[in-house]
Amino acid sequence: MTTDQLADEIAWNSDGLAPVIVQDAATGDVLMMAWTNREAFRKTIETRESHFFSRSRGMLWHKGATSGHVQQVVEIRLDCDGDVILFRVRQKGAACHEGYASCFFRSVDENGDLRVNRPPVFDPATIYSKRVET
Amino acid sequence: MTTDQLADEIAWNSDGLAPVIVQDAATGDVLMMAWTNREAFRKTIETRESHFFSRSRGMLWHKGATSGHVQQVVEIRLDCDGDVILFRVRQKGAACHEGYASCFFRSVDENGDLRVNRPPVFDPATIYSKRVET
Repeated sequence: MTTDQLADEIAWNSDGLAPVIVQDAATGDVLMMAWTNREAFRKTIETRESHFFSRSRGMLWHKGATSGHVQQVVEIRLDCDGDVILFRVRQKGAACHEGYASCFFRSVDENGDLRVNRPPVFDPATIYSKRVET
Repeated sequence: MTTDQLADEIAWNSDGLAPVIVQDAATGDVLMMAWTNREAFRKTIETRESHFFSRSRGMLWHKGATSGHVQQVVEIRLDCDGDVILFRVRQKGAACHEGYASCFFRSVDENGDLRVNRPPVFDPATIYSKRVET
């Protein structure tokens, strides 16, 4: 089917958005969650690189445009209700703007405290001049 | 920290909800996404089984209460912005009410069509009298 027909299979919410879970295709690590709309979805299909809709900036967001940490999308899955999308990707660099491979770098430990669960893979200060979405 | 303090670390949205990605802790398979609120989060911590907030039914939802397909939560992760939660679980039975281990049982194939990417693990008709959330 065409990309527009495929987009019609997605149950977009009242804001025209759907959540995207991004998973590392090689390791299975869940990297991040972001939101897409029809435009970002079409750009992702066309370029095979993750594009999202940034709700904070109200605009299309090519993941890695600033950092170089693009995501090559190797598989797209849709859930049973059609309202959640899963991108399986090859991640360049790191998914998280805080320097970790995954945004889920904090776990609840046995005392109920949040603890960092992995070492960072880069120093954000070397890539971003200020804290921005990546 | 206490469960209430931990819940304070979550950036709940304007409806008091946060999305939860559920991942099979053994296989890495992404099983589903659902929503939680403070009550469901607290119940999950207390029982170590996934509880969600069902937006369609407007109520607390103990995953597996109908089907027996409960999720034992072995790890909880929080993303960098604190607005997305990841449960790593041991899934009894199957996550999806349509009979598949994961709700993400459809992939976009090379022609842009949606194709089932795995066999079902149970027949929903044997478990549910009608199509309901599991």
